[in-house]
Amino acid sequence: MASDTLPIILITNDDGITAPGIRGLVDAVKGLGQVVVVAPDKPQSGMGHAITIGVPLRLNQVDIYGDIEAWQTSGTPVDCVKLAVDKVLHRKPDICLSGINHGANHSINVIYSGTMSAAMEASIESIPSIGFSLLDYRFEADFTASKYYVHKIVESLLKTKMNKHLLLNVNIPAVPVEEIMGIKVCRQAYAKYEEDFNERIDPQGKKYYWLTGEFVNFDKGEDTDVWALQHNYVSVVPVQFDLTNYELKKVLQTNWD
Amino acid sequence: MASDTLPIILITNDDGITAPGIRGLVDAVKGLGQVVVVAPDKPQSGMGHAITIGVPLRLNQVDIYGDIEAWQTSGTPVDCVKLAVDKVLHRKPDICLSGINHGANHSINVIYSGTMSAAMEASIESIPSIGFSLLDYRFEADFTASKYYVHKIVESLLKTKMNKHLLLNVNIPAVPVEEIMGIKVCRQAYAKYEEDFNERIDPQGKKYYWLTGEFVNFDKGEDTDVWALQHNYVSVVPVQFDLTNYELKKVLQTNWD
Repeated sequence: MASDTLPIILITNDDGITAPGIRGLVDAVKGLGQVVVVAPDKPQSGMGHAITIGVPLRLNQVDIYGDIEAWQTSGTPVDCVKLAVDKVLHRKPDICLSGINHGANHSINVIYSGTMSAAMEASIESIPSIGFSLLDYRFEADFTASKYYVHKIVESLLKTKMNKHLLLNVNIPAVPVEEIMGIKVCRQAYAKYEEDFNERIDPQGKKYYWLTGEFVNFDKGEDTDVWALQHNYVSVVPVQFDLTNYELKKVLQTNWD
Repeated sequence: MASDTLPIILITNDDGITAPGIRGLVDAVKGLGQVVVVAPDKPQSGMGHAITIGVPLRLNQVDIYGDIEAWQTSGTPVDCVKLAVDKVLHRKPDICLSGINHGANHSINVIYSGTMSAAMEASIESIPSIGFSLLDYRFEADFTASKYYVHKIVESLLKTKMNKHLLLNVNIPAVPVEEIMGIKVCRQAYAKYEEDFNERIDPQGKKYYWLTGEFVNFDKGEDTDVWALQHNYVSVVPVQFDLTNYELKKVLQTNWD
């Protein structure tokens, strides 16, 4: 099959181009299309939907995946998607995959996640897109089960006619593949980190603060991503970028009429 | 009236604590409650929902608004809200206001906006919250009309029992107050910047890229924020942080059953 008939699969992440998770993502899908990697040159966790304004960006081709085309940028995950379309591919890819993130991006964390923001950027630009995260933040995390489910999900979607704004947040439990119960389509749980700051004194006697937090699930629903992951399912949350609260919109106008 | 009976109004922004826009916001609402400012010590535009991980934060009280308590932080707008609740107020404020941003945050820009991310963070933390933006990015922008509408909106909401997750994205047209047609509750338009990168060569002969873009409205609806602003209305979009696409959720499970 000539390479121009294969789907073009753009891959990015927020842990940086050298993270084992993005290598796992490349391995999982390289048989499914023409893979091109455009990823940050350093870790960008917690960058949310940040874009780089006021500072120029660098973009350099690098040889780290053998025969897979790869570029690193000085920008955020969102910058990577923009640069990939405009300066690397010179077209929209058929699908954009982000991850595999080292660490969970379920529940409210979809909003803070650089992994998901890259995927959301692609979706806004009419590119079907999926973010993948493994519930193990360690560098040496085992991506075996993740690779199996990434392949399964991407292969099945490439066989369908995807909506151009399709956007999925996929989280994978950190257990061996034989313990995974299957794939569950879920809603985003209302579960979040309850933040606290660890206050310390620097050598000059001035205060500084480290962000810390404890994960709390306020949502008892059995249709949430948190529930699915606790029960060893791969969670798939379909995500949208229209943030309008339509229920509130109905009742609000009367305040100012 | 004793100050402990006044509502506590937390104010933050993404243009930094010295921006004229946040001063305009303080001026607009200082008669409505006990105002406390916790804002970034430098501009943070385009930071999206970024949080600071891996670097400690600074928090210092500063005297720039006379009798209004003000703190600057080294963090992002989202960090400011977290620090304000945990280390400044030691409680949730009654309302959180973010802005007034120098520049528009309508349509898809709600996702990239540091102004709106601070407001969204507050909403997630069960604090009713509003982001305000003026459609004039200049430092010397005229906030007269903005102050009038900020006061009107905040005063009216403080008289109601607000939902604890209330979150509004308010944009104000850059015209004199007498030309503003009123307040319109809207949905988020599907309108976005079509990005392009300006490619240049540095003195060492290496390429670098500046993000540029042209605003394009793909959404012909007359119920959108872009339509309202084009017709000189103040646009109010109610926003939610549950990003689940429930329509897609209904049809997706069959892919993997």
